[in-house]
Amino acid sequence: MKHLLPTVAVLSLAVPALAQEATPPPSPGEIAAAAPARDWVAIAPSDLLVMDLAPDAKSRPRRVVIQLMPAPFSQGWIGNVRKLAAAHWWDGTSVNRVQDNYVAQWGDATEKKPLPQGLAALSEDAYSLALDGITYWENPKTNAMRLKAVWLSPEAFEGGPIIRDDSYADAGMFWKGWPVAMAGDAKADEIFDRGKYVWPVHCYGMVGVGRNMSPDTGSGAELYAVIGHAPRHLDRNIAVVGRVVSGIEYLSSLPRGTEELGFYKTEAERTPIGSIRIASDLPAAEQPRFEYLSTESDSFARYADARANRRDPFFIKPAGGADICNIPVPVRPVVAK
Amino acid sequence: MKHLLPTVAVLSLAVPALAQEATPPPSPGEIAAAAPARDWVAIAPSDLLVMDLAPDAKSRPRRVVIQLMPAPFSQGWIGNVRKLAAAHWWDGTSVNRVQDNYVAQWGDATEKKPLPQGLAALSEDAYSLALDGITYWENPKTNAMRLKAVWLSPEAFEGGPIIRDDSYADAGMFWKGWPVAMAGDAKADEIFDRGKYVWPVHCYGMVGVGRNMSPDTGSGAELYAVIGHAPRHLDRNIAVVGRVVSGIEYLSSLPRGTEELGFYKTEAERTPIGSIRIASDLPAAEQPRFEYLSTESDSFARYADARANRRDPFFIKPAGGADICNIPVPVRPVVAK
Repeated sequence: MKHLLPTVAVLSLAVPALAQEATPPPSPGEIAAAAPARDWVAIAPSDLLVMDLAPDAKSRPRRVVIQLMPAPFSQGWIGNVRKLAAAHWWDGTSVNRVQDNYVAQWGDATEKKPLPQGLAALSEDAYSLALDGITYWENPKTNAMRLKAVWLSPEAFEGGPIIRDDSYADAGMFWKGWPVAMAGDAKADEIFDRGKYVWPVHCYGMVGVGRNMSPDTGSGAELYAVIGHAPRHLDRNIAVVGRVVSGIEYLSSLPRGTEELGFYKTEAERTPIGSIRIASDLPAAEQPRFEYLSTESDSFARYADARANRRDPFFIKPAGGADICNIPVPVRPVVAK
Repeated sequence: MKHLLPTVAVLSLAVPALAQEATPPPSPGEIAAAAPARDWVAIAPSDLLVMDLAPDAKSRPRRVVIQLMPAPFSQGWIGNVRKLAAAHWWDGTSVNRVQDNYVAQWGDATEKKPLPQGLAALSEDAYSLALDGITYWENPKTNAMRLKAVWLSPEAFEGGPIIRDDSYADAGMFWKGWPVAMAGDAKADEIFDRGKYVWPVHCYGMVGVGRNMSPDTGSGAELYAVIGHAPRHLDRNIAVVGRVVSGIEYLSSLPRGTEELGFYKTEAERTPIGSIRIASDLPAAEQPRFEYLSTESDSFARYADARANRRDPFFIKPAGGADICNIPVPVRPVVAK
């Protein structure tokens, strides 16, 4: 038998010694895989960005698919991203920077390529959103976990499970398939019932907008994907516009750049980008199709709880909690029928 | 100017607009770089494991250096690791599994290589340590951050800054250069003053011991390094024996395995291991030398505070906190004089 570590993927473990006993508790991946079709939400091809890197050394294709964030988050930058893709602006650019445990970044290495007309200039205010208020409901069962567990919050602007012990915010939450963070204003932050701000968070695979020093906020032409431990200190300091839903390994396994910040020293080290397109602009047969597990579903609540309290056979000590970036929202390809 | 993201490395940013103003607050990397020599602690070569992978496709060497955890953590497994290295057991084995955002794992792919005599069989109890008690002191200044900031704890078993809002424990702490987590017993966990358990945590770069299903705890022959977001759900479920202090990029940038759990499909995909040695068993001139920033020093306290509250010029909104794995302990090579 292989010496295995548990996995975040779906996993069927043969456990002969337990074969006569009750079925062991499912893993998070098994819970997601067993979710009914109604709990899966299709991602519109118009919200998918398809980045085809140059084939690898063995001529194998390398396609990275990015889901753009839904409104109302980061929509100004996302509008720019759509314009850049429509203008085929990234074709012939490259991945120029790969910094270990941090980001892979792509764009125009020459920094001389003219940008398309009509890109919006965005305000730093748009890194987070102000809300009128939030109410939430605590599950008495999991509240016994001393605010460490994940619990349901059916009223919280129609979002999914809330995570209270977030180092970077008053709370984390899942909303329409995305992890977001929330904080109160300076006067009310102990109360959680008014003056809220909410913002997208930098988890593994998230895609953000490179920028110069403040007050620059970036155009969207220079993008990066997180390839290491969640750099949450970037939250509210940079715009998050999407997340990689397929092909992150083509970015995360690139050689690290040896210059400052992980930039490559020579042009030969860069990975050329063949094209970046909005999926709905591709021929219908070539459009990738993905769906995510609704974060408002009971299935996701059970999945998140199982991520925080592993009870599947490999584990002997459930943690009693999980940080928001260790509860990745399940996304899978839609299989043609 | 490059479109830059901030970095965890030392970084000197040219900020012409501010040149006439006061010196901007230092970045965490700048704080570490400015720490006096007395705040840096040499790592004994007898505590370093040197793994030489086969050279890469361009014949460049790939050396990974791992620091073993200090006593009293995981010493049974670490004793086994020392015996395996002394027996040259890993020479000719390979990296067999690379799972994206999770781990790179190495050992004997055939699973038939006999182990050296005399390896210890360890108990699951040794995944964490019981302590008599802990007291700590809160810094009133940072306590104003509502338990979200990092503050000094000079008494807490002589450790460094404490982090209270940990999703997986009652608190995180730095101790002798390592991140650890703590929890009270079931009766006293609101009080923090008796019946404590403490254990090492799975941050990026940490090295653990692969195992089969419980009650197996692994021998130490099968090791893995974390190459993604901290899989803290493994804490107290697997032994942590060390961390990569140099060369993690040779593991994290390997191609991902395409089989279940990231195992490679073919032998050709595996990365051969030339040798693994304890550094003190190498000729003196070949022994790598490293030092870490004392986590009990004022320099580290300021570094940790700056990681949680970025005030260097790139940032516009300090987070007010950081999770323990987003405060990597600075480690650097010792430069010969």
